Amino acid sequence: MAATPWYFVAVLLTILTSSQGILTTLSQSDGGYKYDYATVPFLAEVFKLIISGLFLWREMRTSSSTTSRITTDWKSVRLFVIPSLIYLIHNNVQFATLTYVDTSTYQIMGNLKIVTTGILFRLFLKRKLSKLQWMAIGLLAVGTTTSQVKGCGEASCDSLFTAPIQGYLLGILSAGLSALAGIYTEFLMKRNNDTLYWQNLQLYTFGSLFNVARLIADDFRHGFEKGPWWQRIFDGYSITTWLVVLNLGSTGLLVSWLMKYADNIVKVYSTSMAMLLTMVASIYLFSFKPTLQLFLGIVICIMSLHMYFAPPHTLVDLPVTNEAHAKTLKQVVVEAKTDS
Amino acid sequence: MAATPWYFVAVLLTILTSSQGILTTLSQSDGGYKYDYATVPFLAEVFKLIISGLFLWREMRTSSSTTSRITTDWKSVRLFVIPSLIYLIHNNVQFATLTYVDTSTYQIMGNLKIVTTGILFRLFLKRKLSKLQWMAIGLLAVGTTTSQVKGCGEASCDSLFTAPIQGYLLGILSAGLSALAGIYTEFLMKRNNDTLYWQNLQLYTFGSLFNVARLIADDFRHGFEKGPWWQRIFDGYSITTWLVVLNLGSTGLLVSWLMKYADNIVKVYSTSMAMLLTMVASIYLFSFKPTLQLFLGIVICIMSLHMYFAPPHTLVDLPVTNEAHAKTLKQVVVEAKTDS
Repeated sequence: MAATPWYFVAVLLTILTSSQGILTTLSQSDGGYKYDYATVPFLAEVFKLIISGLFLWREMRTSSSTTSRITTDWKSVRLFVIPSLIYLIHNNVQFATLTYVDTSTYQIMGNLKIVTTGILFRLFLKRKLSKLQWMAIGLLAVGTTTSQVKGCGEASCDSLFTAPIQGYLLGILSAGLSALAGIYTEFLMKRNNDTLYWQNLQLYTFGSLFNVARLIADDFRHGFEKGPWWQRIFDGYSITTWLVVLNLGSTGLLVSWLMKYADNIVKVYSTSMAMLLTMVASIYLFSFKPTLQLFLGIVICIMSLHMYFAPPHTLVDLPVTNEAHAKTLKQVVVEAKTDS
Repeated sequence: MAATPWYFVAVLLTILTSSQGILTTLSQSDGGYKYDYATVPFLAEVFKLIISGLFLWREMRTSSSTTSRITTDWKSVRLFVIPSLIYLIHNNVQFATLTYVDTSTYQIMGNLKIVTTGILFRLFLKRKLSKLQWMAIGLLAVGTTTSQVKGCGEASCDSLFTAPIQGYLLGILSAGLSALAGIYTEFLMKRNNDTLYWQNLQLYTFGSLFNVARLIADDFRHGFEKGPWWQRIFDGYSITTWLVVLNLGSTGLLVSWLMKYADNIVKVYSTSMAMLLTMVASIYLFSFKPTLQLFLGIVICIMSLHMYFAPPHTLVDLPVTNEAHAKTLKQVVVEAKTDS
């Protein structure tokens, strides 16, 4: 599976993430959820745990101990609790942010995550990006934001510049935490040669535990008025709800794979493209009105994708228009020859 | 004057073009013009003609005949009528377009001019652009369009996708003609070593004649009910109107300079940046509401500017993040060394 090209996994993640939004909308009835939405991420964690366990078991059985490494030292295992902890803090910050700003402002600010991921990628993982790649990351954030600009006639759009300052600060913190969780997971996956399935097993064990804790906390908050969570976990579940669970679990596994064999930037492109794909699909599925800003956003994001991933020499390797403007690649090559 | 750096002239053009929009707004009273707006471009042509004549006279007097070349052959002179002819056709196409689409759709389609200029620049002037520069030109058009996306609550914004097909075709034709006029002028200015002032003199003589013809045509269309144009040419003129004339004349002279010593792409960047600058200035001067899309448009255009004009090696010359993604510049250099 490690031999699968990263872009294949990235495209699959884009399609599944995009389906996630559509399936979630389809799983609603009368504009609300008939099931307890908090059970979905819990079941998705369990699904990922089972799949990773099965893969690990198969790998352990078929391969020699030298090819599939496993570190069971507690000093290593305990690191896998950190992503869950960050997500816990993030969820609370998100909740606090939404007390200051409305959901559409929150959604717009969510695009900051793209930029914070780039920054933490550079700072914590020490990965160098070219100026063009930095610009591409900036453009990706600009492109996704453009696609979300409210059209004419839509209500509550004066709110963007009028929220209290705390709202914006919490929004930035939220973007930072979201990026940190991703960057930390990439660090975990790449820090040693442990097999992916073992790393996943640790990640999803803590993930499942935190989700159980959340369900219990919800029960206490509501005073057990509807009984404990395990008695009503599948209440209101339809086929679509199960598809939402399977889809969420699958995207989680793909993200894990990308963290080990590609990186956070690939994931960010994948999920941003998925957001645009969902909007396009919604035009057909839910009769959403196509907007000029969606079209512009798509053009910007595709250009950004190209700027980031295309081999640089294919982008700049041509004589430039105005001799006064720029030094061509040829000159760089000539200089390099002279240097050696 | 030929030794002035092109970017200095470009910045000056940006500022003056931006002032043009503001001055024109200031010259209005009660939302309309007290003067005949058609007299403004005519007087601006005459202003440019006088200035060019004076400069030519000074140059002819001070320099030897070898340094300042003048081609008076009618075969050469007659070519200078073509830009005026293209503008004449363009104005009529513009008029026809506006019978099918509203002004805001027309304004949005006007950004196509950026792309058509790039295409004609490549086709007619045979100037090669790198893939990155093509993307930069595309982004500039996307950026200016983004800044013009109608905000919420603004009226008549459903019209963009609903105009008849003729409207869009005429809009494309209009963008093509506008680009053609620019590209042809650049060709004229660069085809020989004639002094700029002589080239200008020819250009503005035809320009003045066509503008006079337009004023006469207007008189005939209105049945001379207000008398011939020369009797009421300065009617309703204020100091601001004169500033509009001087400003329009000055920007024309700067564009001419750029056509000879820089190129159409520089001009397109200059005028696009001016459009954004006008919108920002209008926030302060005319209490326009700042929009998210204006901010996004500015970010996109600045990135585009950087992508187009920055020396390519400064953009891509860094190790890239994911080894699987791209071939680094170093590899290109190594290959170049191996080739030689």
